[in-house]
Amino acid sequence: MPKLWNETIETHRQAVRDATLDTTAALVAEHGLTSVTMSKIAEKTGIGRATLYKYFPDVESILSAWHERRISAHLHELATVRDRVADPAARLEQVLKAYALIHQERVRHHNEPYGAELAALLHPDEHVAHAQHHLREMFRELLEQAAAAGAVRDDIAAGELATYCLHALTAAGGLPSEPAAERLVEVTLAGLRPPDATHPANTAG
Amino acid sequence: MPKLWNETIETHRQAVRDATLDTTAALVAEHGLTSVTMSKIAEKTGIGRATLYKYFPDVESILSAWHERRISAHLHELATVRDRVADPAARLEQVLKAYALIHQERVRHHNEPYGAELAALLHPDEHVAHAQHHLREMFRELLEQAAAAGAVRDDIAAGELATYCLHALTAAGGLPSEPAAERLVEVTLAGLRPPDATHPANTAG
Repeated sequence: MPKLWNETIETHRQAVRDATLDTTAALVAEHGLTSVTMSKIAEKTGIGRATLYKYFPDVESILSAWHERRISAHLHELATVRDRVADPAARLEQVLKAYALIHQERVRHHNEPYGAELAALLHPDEHVAHAQHHLREMFRELLEQAAAAGAVRDDIAAGELATYCLHALTAAGGLPSEPAAERLVEVTLAGLRPPDATHPANTAG
Repeated sequence: MPKLWNETIETHRQAVRDATLDTTAALVAEHGLTSVTMSKIAEKTGIGRATLYKYFPDVESILSAWHERRISAHLHELATVRDRVADPAARLEQVLKAYALIHQERVRHHNEPYGAELAALLHPDEHVAHAQHHLREMFRELLEQAAAAGAVRDDIAAGELATYCLHALTAAGGLPSEPAAERLVEVTLAGLRPPDATHPANTAG
């Protein structure tokens, strides 16, 4: 059964890869990049140094892969939240909230001993640009659906509203608690409501 | 009249300093940092190389001073807009709009040939942190005054609303036109309105 065998190999490779990423991120966050070597990573992951080099050429490439995996996980998390809710308005609110909390968590990591150093290393690359595009498209679709349901204004393009949401919610990184992040989502959502609902006198304007 | 003489000296020094900053920023934006030397800067500014070294030790320190001057100019611009309008709601709107346009302009510079390289050099330093604190305080006060006038919700701390505004308006950097930036300000302001004005049924909640 070569297919099953290949799957086993692939599962094993994925497990080694994942363990390497986890170990490296933990080592860098704890000790700083300059004190983390390929030997140290191999030792802590429990694999040989030669094996590690079959997966990654250097520490930077491991961190880049770790970052890529984290971004994919965030996108997957948001898609899961989206697909769990049927009502367009509630769906939008849930995804905005999940995104705000991801940002709050991200800044918490940034404040770990070597978190800022790690963040500075993770330059925006092609993968990040792709993820940001994907995220903006997801928000744009959610906003279009909510606008069609009458919960969001339709006099401003959904793409512009998506840009507003994505920026407004990054404010969660500067807020101290989950309730504060929830208030931010509430304020951000209030900005999206149809103007005729908020300003009955201005419907014609 | 030693006082006048000192003022003349000071005015002259300030003029040389300003000219140096302008020249350096223009040279870096046009040719990139690596091709800009102290000699080149002195030549283009029209001063001697020895004179330039009396003002600045290296190119990086000139760029840092240039950045500091630009941030101060932006804060001054926002304060001028603020002090021009008496009505708290209109004042808030005008300052938010000015801030959005500053951000749009900033990203336009970023997209110049070597704009991104220049931006990457201008690391957030103490001066930037001080300016951000100052900006947040300015927004917080404007929001408190607008809340006292009934134009902004007062059930969420003005500091949290300031954080929301500052982040939401950075979205202007991704918007293509001034009308788009104005729509962003409109949406951001809508998020700030008292909930009883937008949701009459929820006043008790």
